[in-house]
Amino acid sequence: MKEVSIISIGNEIVKGRTVNTNATEIAMAFTETGFYVSRHVSIPDDCKTISETLTASFKEFHITVTTGGLGPTFDDMTIKCLARGLGKKLTLNEEALNIIEEKYKGLKLPLTEERRKMALFPEDAKIIKNSVGTAPGLFYTLDSHKIFCLPGVPKEMRSMLPEVLNLSGKSGLNYVSMEFNISGVMESSMAPFVKLLMREYENSIFIKTHPVSDEINDPKLTVELYSLSDKIGEAKVKMAEIKNKIEKWVDNQRNSKALPGTGK
Amino acid sequence: MKEVSIISIGNEIVKGRTVNTNATEIAMAFTETGFYVSRHVSIPDDCKTISETLTASFKEFHITVTTGGLGPTFDDMTIKCLARGLGKKLTLNEEALNIIEEKYKGLKLPLTEERRKMALFPEDAKIIKNSVGTAPGLFYTLDSHKIFCLPGVPKEMRSMLPEVLNLSGKSGLNYVSMEFNISGVMESSMAPFVKLLMREYENSIFIKTHPVSDEINDPKLTVELYSLSDKIGEAKVKMAEIKNKIEKWVDNQRNSKALPGTGK
Repeated sequence: MKEVSIISIGNEIVKGRTVNTNATEIAMAFTETGFYVSRHVSIPDDCKTISETLTASFKEFHITVTTGGLGPTFDDMTIKCLARGLGKKLTLNEEALNIIEEKYKGLKLPLTEERRKMALFPEDAKIIKNSVGTAPGLFYTLDSHKIFCLPGVPKEMRSMLPEVLNLSGKSGLNYVSMEFNISGVMESSMAPFVKLLMREYENSIFIKTHPVSDEINDPKLTVELYSLSDKIGEAKVKMAEIKNKIEKWVDNQRNSKALPGTGK
Repeated sequence: MKEVSIISIGNEIVKGRTVNTNATEIAMAFTETGFYVSRHVSIPDDCKTISETLTASFKEFHITVTTGGLGPTFDDMTIKCLARGLGKKLTLNEEALNIIEEKYKGLKLPLTEERRKMALFPEDAKIIKNSVGTAPGLFYTLDSHKIFCLPGVPKEMRSMLPEVLNLSGKSGLNYVSMEFNISGVMESSMAPFVKLLMREYENSIFIKTHPVSDEINDPKLTVELYSLSDKIGEAKVKMAEIKNKIEKWVDNQRNSKALPGTGK
């Protein structure tokens, strides 16, 4: 199982100005590719915190993906602080510089110090092209660990995600999932049955219930089944079985006694 | 400055099924009350990870707020793993038990093991009432550190937030902020001016630019000014000055030369 850590950099996330949809999108993309996402961390624009958080992530997980802090402003410092954490020098990346130069030349704007900053990368880093904005992303390998630094602007991040998944390689597993809704049953009523099912299937399928309405007066649950598996077909068969068992159990509950929300 | 750490517990957050709006809402509530939010972490339903993450948070920050994992299912384990991290025993909290018993009695449902589980708290914990759902929240003090455990269902978390802020006490600072939009200027064009302003105001006001549209063809920025200050009036005056200076600077740029997106 290959583990992924997602690090979001920016005061606007941490202080609650901006909802962190980037972390969710990146997590879902890796999950669906068969990786196990282990952690999200959001930290402010502070170089010591960035360096330490990145360094800890390399040690613990296979892949680290950051968003934010690649732009031209004084508080965009992800690459600089990554280099500090790695103990590497920053150098002008010729490929990045060419791309940035081209963009501003087209706009008849000068290549200022702030714009050149976006072409500074650790010595042996590769860049990921930004088809939507200006700042290129970073790809770096550290032993068997892979590091990706992406912009914080969601559409820029999103445009790089396919290349990030491509460079991440194969996870060796497949993500299989299924969701369905049931009504008239409280989460606490179904909890013992879910526990039994998890035991019956030897925890090969994860069963999670999500309350979606008024828990007491009109209980509804979304049941989520999922698995990281090397046998897709087998996982799908098991999920169909589990869904069937849960639906039968709900019917039995409805028929056998009054349940809140069923009008009985 | 009192520092807050927010920990979101649940596979559905980490693997990317669910956007973590709870962390944003909690962060904004604390920020607006004059606290400094230092970190968000999202972790899976895994007891070792929960214990370790909580223990690390107590050591580093003044206040820790968790969401998720308070319910009746097998994977709801926040309180148990908190107790493990604290080296405390779990005992039946009489107040919590009474509330839970009342709720299920009204529904003519039995007090099963899964439902009783929601009344297990570390010995000297206090509970926070849940006016929307069933599982009570937790309030615990550890030396000068405060710990809050809230449910993951957003409306339940939200209903407890005023009490959480109340129990958190005074931060001693005030959050002052202002946002306004400017157009026709690229972030990279304004970056040097922002740097100068930050220096002029000795970093007492944080100035952050957020690109909100097509960076190259139709550049628009939201400019955010904010400060955690013990002098509200002074901070507001400085912000009005800064806004004025930025707007004048933008006008000068427009008048002096061609800018992308201005039609010149």
